[in-house]
Parts: sequence; structure tokens; C-alpha cells
Amino acid sequence: MSALITLTTDFGLADHFVGTMKGVILGINPSAQFVDLSHHVNPFDVFDGALTIALAYRYFPSHTIHLVIVDPGVGSSRRPILARAGEHSFVAPDNGVLSFVYEREESVEVRHVAVDHYFLKPVSNTFHGRDIFAPVAGWLSKGVEAEKFGETITDYVKFAVPKPQRISAQTIQGMVIKVDQFGNLITNISPADAPEIFTASPSQFAIAVGQQQIARMIDSYSAGEPSEVFAILGSSGFLELGQNRGSAAKTLQVGRGAEVKVALG
Amino acid sequence: MSALITLTTDFGLADHFVGTMKGVILGINPSAQFVDLSHHVNPFDVFDGALTIALAYRYFPSHTIHLVIVDPGVGSSRRPILARAGEHSFVAPDNGVLSFVYEREESVEVRHVAVDHYFLKPVSNTFHGRDIFAPVAGWLSKGVEAEKFGETITDYVKFAVPKPQRISAQTIQGMVIKVDQFGNLITNISPADAPEIFTASPSQFAIAVGQQQIARMIDSYSAGEPSEVFAILGSSGFLELGQNRGSAAKTLQVGRGAEVKVALG
Amino acid sequence: MSALITLTTDFGLADHFVGTMKGVILGINPSAQFVDLSHHVNPFDVFDGALTIALAYRYFPSHTIHLVIVDPGVGSSRRPILARAGEHSFVAPDNGVLSFVYEREESVEVRHVAVDHYFLKPVSNTFHGRDIFAPVAGWLSKGVEAEKFGETITDYVKFAVPKPQRISAQTIQGMVIKVDQFGNLITNISPADAPEIFTASPSQFAIAVGQQQIARMIDSYSAGEPSEVFAILGSSGFLELGQNRGSAAKTLQVGRGAEVKVALG
Repeated sequence: MSALITLTTDFGLADHFVGTMKGVILGINPSAQFVDLSHHVNPFDVFDGALTIALAYRYFPSHTIHLVIVDPGVGSSRRPILARAGEHSFVAPDNGVLSFVYEREESVEVRHVAVDHYFLKPVSNTFHGRDIFAPVAGWLSKGVEAEKFGETITDYVKFAVPKPQRISAQTIQGMVIKVDQFGNLITNISPADAPEIFTASPSQFAIAVGQQQIARMIDSYSAGEPSEVFAILGSSGFLELGQNRGSAAKTLQVGRGAEVKVALG
Repeated sequence: MSALITLTTDFGLADHFVGTMKGVILGINPSAQFVDLSHHVNPFDVFDGALTIALAYRYFPSHTIHLVIVDPGVGSSRRPILARAGEHSFVAPDNGVLSFVYEREESVEVRHVAVDHYFLKPVSNTFHGRDIFAPVAGWLSKGVEAEKFGETITDYVKFAVPKPQRISAQTIQGMVIKVDQFGNLITNISPADAPEIFTASPSQFAIAVGQQQIARMIDSYSAGEPSEVFAILGSSGFLELGQNRGSAAKTLQVGRGAEVKVALG
Repeated sequence: MSALITLTTDFGLADHFVGTMKGVILGINPSAQFVDLSHHVNPFDVFDGALTIALAYRYFPSHTIHLVIVDPGVGSSRRPILARAGEHSFVAPDNGVLSFVYEREESVEVRHVAVDHYFLKPVSNTFHGRDIFAPVAGWLSKGVEAEKFGETITDYVKFAVPKPQRISAQTIQGMVIKVDQFGNLITNISPADAPEIFTASPSQFAIAVGQQQIARMIDSYSAGEPSEVFAILGSSGFLELGQNRGSAAKTLQVGRGAEVKVALG
């Protein structure tokens, strides 16, 4: 068991929350090592957290522990869970924040973390990151076996991951699932969904998003003309709409959830 | 002596300041370990820094060193200090930024850091974080004894921590001391100040803040009705005003310093 | 070879990019240690990145590896490079982002990183931070020798570092090269450029910037009068225009690139 722990939350970096969780973990396991994935998940936005962890976890060594806390239901009856998926462990609320991970991994085992022996007492109703999730990650990183934290469950929460649809022979309908730091629009369309536009010399196509049509696929951001919005295969394996030294999101005035329609031929 | 060092500053994360301090420390003690508490303390706001460190330090292991740098008086005659409070060490400017810590701990020893042997030369007038506080924390983490840095003092700066007042038998007057990432309003009222509203079945009460009255205490954020602002016992042990998946600060249009009046019965 | 790696990027902290790079490095070298310098370099702004790394790297121990990724040309023909400058190593795109470092160090050796054996496959066209720069830094931190990554080159990109000009016997013309977190305006004028104003009792001078004249040099921010903008020797060794508990940038309504004219006598 590695002592490497990643953190993904909507806690922001202005408050002491993230640091306090690390303090709790280091009190349990002084050799824990941390990597922050993001603390700027949109507040309360389980989908955004689910996508963030899914895009990153596979780049970490086997046996990494991933703390994923986007938890609008803190203090309610929603369960804390410990999931083993592929070669990684995840500690999170059971609200769907691991849905993309479940989708990607064949082998998934989820436990309801119920043994309060491992919690920080008294457990508050408003900060389970500090009182439940951090200490569980700490003990797990110290070698406590998964089965010690609670029983396996099969009714864990998993939301339907939005998939692009081929709505006609020539039309694929997807959506923007994320806008990144640079304003690139990341869609849920992968090369497997629209192989026609990802070949070496793609046939003609038009991608409709917002009020605009995009008809050019290029290989690198810097190949874009000034202010042109183009299509590109992004580093996450999805179709992106981008701009050279500019923000496609601003230029197109669209954001997450926007419909993206690929018309072939 | 642990090599664990936390950092709390108003330096932000856009500039190189925080990283440079860590470089200086690692040059002195390569096995130093860092946890960032916050670098988004409101600029020049000693009160905000004082509260941030106070809310977090007790969750760290004994012998942790806490660097706390909110320092509008850098380069003036304000003293650098090294404080031992409870089982923790603090390196900070002597401007009151440790006031809440002094308030919470029974055993406090404060030294004027004056032995410039431990400073990074030449000492600038504008970045004592790099030239004084970081190297002192570095040497301290390497095992240099506290008395080597300077003499104890008793006239260190401590501002009066704002306490709620029982202005009548039925009225407690407090204030908002912090707005967190989610827009929750954290007050300075603890269960000891207003036990009547923190019992299992509290008697009727009304909390006046801004233009609104809040009359309901609930157990978890998610128990709130849409757009309702409610009272809740927060994870710091203070009365909070919050909202379910929303910002009480925005809804009520109030911020830090706002008066909070609890009327009982 | 140290396992200490600093990171300077324009990736921001909202996305998973920085964390993912650290995951890749830890997969190669589990004992790598990270210090973030800044991930808030202005997007695509090579000059801003070049300045950020230059202001910080000398405060790190010898043999530190600095990852510097501001890379609008990702996926194009711009080369990845590995530079040894002074006692530090740098992994970066060859776009000038190390220009200030080259300027400061006498001994510089730059290699074109071309041996894709050390890359993460498949190499994307849009995220060389993850696929090229991070793994190269990882292998380098594990002890792979610099010459293994590629041949030395001499035609690496270096932009002209803007220097102040003495445009007449009594006039020095410089510029604002950075605005820091507090709104201080950092110029490119050092004491060597304008010794007359940096003596213990400087002769009369007037600094013209924006619509204003500044005629006072002081020793510490806190010596400034309320709302006064003053001159001060900053911690980076450059003339700064600052304000006591306020933002000179806001007060003067100027930013990076603004002309600064020092008139002596």
C-alpha cells in the first residue's frame, strides 16, 4: 500500500479546509505524501468532480489513494464509501462522484465505510472531509485493510455517464462536458464515436455548437488562424473545440452542457 | 522536533513568493515537509490570518511549525517572533496575527527573533518571509533550539478577540467573523455562548442578520429548503448561517463584520 | 542529482493538469519532491513565465530541476529542451521561457530533448507537460544523465530581455515588467541602472509613470502615507512603485509594459 494520496474537492484554497485534512492524515501517517488534483471543482457539482478524478487517476502509480470530496449531502444519510477500482483506491461520499471511474474500470469493489473507530471524534455534521474521509484515507495509507472499514455494497450511487448518440447515419450528437483553463471546450465525443473525422484525411464535416459551425480539424493549437475556432483531438482522448492563444468558450459564448452536433459529409 | 511546516500567508499563488520561501527552507533542511493552509488571506488583513491559523493548527501533529505571514509592517520596527503555544511552534511577525492562538492556549512562550545569524543575507526590507521567517522556520525544523533565536518577551502584540455579548437576558449579540468558500457565514457565537439554541430541542429563537430573521436550526446543510438560510453548528464549533447548495452570504448580502443578534424565546 | 522539482506553468489550478504531471513523475520516481512556483502565469505569456522562474530559481538548492511550461506552440515544431544553467536544470519548451535565466547565468548548456524513449506514449499533441516534460524531469531526477536525452544545441530561442536606457544624462527610461499580488509595480530598473536614487540620501528625482509623478523613495511599505504611491527597492533587486496597504497598480491605473521614466536632479 502506497502512502500517496491525491485530493479532489470543491473546497477552494482560500479556507483552511484542505490543509486541515492533510494535518489529520499526517497525524495518523507521518509519511503520507499528497498531490492536489483540484480544489476548484464547481461548488456542489458532483459531475464536475467525477470528471476531474476520472481524467487524472490513471496517471498515478498503482495503489494510490484518491480522496474525492464534493459532498453537498454531508451530514445527511448519504454513505461514505471506500472503492477499489482497477489498481486504485478511492475514498468519497456515495453520491455518484466516482461514476466515471466505475464506468472505466472492469473490477470495482465498493464498501460502505461504517466502522467509526477510524473516524476523528467528535464527528461534525458539516466537515466529513476532516472527520471521516481524511482519517479513513490516513489509516488506509498506513496499511489498514479495506475490509476493516465496512462491508461491500452493490447499490452504490452511479449516475449515467452522458454518451454521444448517432442520431442519424450522418449525425452525431454530443455535449460539452468541461471548459478548461484555456477556454477549450471538451466534448464527450471520442474517436470511437466519430471515426470519420479522426482519420488522417477526414471527409468533410461540420460541427455545430452555439451559433457557429466548425469545419476544420487540426493537429496542434498553434496551427489555428487568429480567432479561428477549430476541432482538435484533446489530451483526454475527446474531441475538443479550441483556439490558438485564445478562448473558444469566450469566442463561441458557450459552456458546459452545450449541445455539439457533428454532421458528416 | 518535526520537520513539518505549515504556511499561512496573504501572498496569493500567482507570484513566486510562496515557492521561493520553500526553496529557502529546503536549502537549510532538505527533509522539510510543507502543508499550505492558505495563501489567500485577505491582503494586509491580520485578523483574517489570525483566524485562519487558529481554525487549523490543532489538527496537526505536536511539534508542527506554523509559518504565519500577514505582514503589512514588513521592514518597519515590528519584531519577528517565535512562539511556542501548546505543543506547536509559530514563526510570525509580532502584529497580533497569533492572537487567537494565544487566546486558546494556556501555555504560551514568545521570543523576539533577533539573532540575525539565522537570516538570509542581505535581508531585504520588503520580503521578510524569504529572508527572516522562512530561514528561521528552516533552522528550527532542523533542531536549532528556540532559545538560540532570541530572548523571551511578554509585551507581544495581541488584539482583543471579539466575543459575543449577552446584552439582555434574552439577547446575544455577536458578529460574522468569516465567510467561507461556500458562502457560509461563520459567527463568533459558540454553544457555550447561547446554550439555549444548541440543545436537542431548542426553544424558539430568531437570529437577525442583515435585513433577515433566521428561526430554524438544522443538522446538515442538505436539510435546508431551496434558498432557505438556516442556522447550523459549524465544524469550527461556531454558529453558522448557511444555505443548501447556495451562498448565505449572497442571499443575505452580508459579509465579515456584520452584526448577528440572537433573540431567545 | 536531487529529486527536488519545481513547477511553473500557465495551467491554473482548477483543472487536473498539474496533478496529472506529478502523478506521471511519481510513477517514474516515487521519491520526487515538488514545489509549485506558480501555475498562474498569464495564459500563453512566455515573458511572464520567463520572469517568474528567473525571480525564484536561485533560492533553491543546487541541482534542483525546474519544470517551466508556458507552451502556446505545443504540438508544433518547437523543440523540448533540457538546460543546465549555473547549478540548476530546466526542462521547458524552446520558446524563450528561459531567456532571463540564460541572461543571468554564465554557464549555459542547452540540449534538444529528442530521445522519445523517455516520453509517455502515446504522445498527445496538446499536453506535452504530461507526455514529454514531466517524464523527462522524472527520469532526470532519477539520475539519467543529461546527454541521454539529446544533443546540445546553440540556436535555442532567447528573447531580448528589456533593459532600461539612459536616454539622457539625467533621464533613465524603463518599464513595468510585473504587477505582484499586492499591486506593487515591479520595474526593470536596478540600483546599477540608477545609482543616484539608491544612495543613502538620494538627490531629488521624479519618476513619471501613467499620469503621475513619484518623488519619494522610502525603506518600507509601512512608511508610506495613506494612498501615497512611493518608490522602494523591492526584494527582487528592482525599483518598485508601491503603496502602504494598497495597490499602486489600481491607484495609478497602470500595468505591465507601462513606461517608467526617472528624471534626476
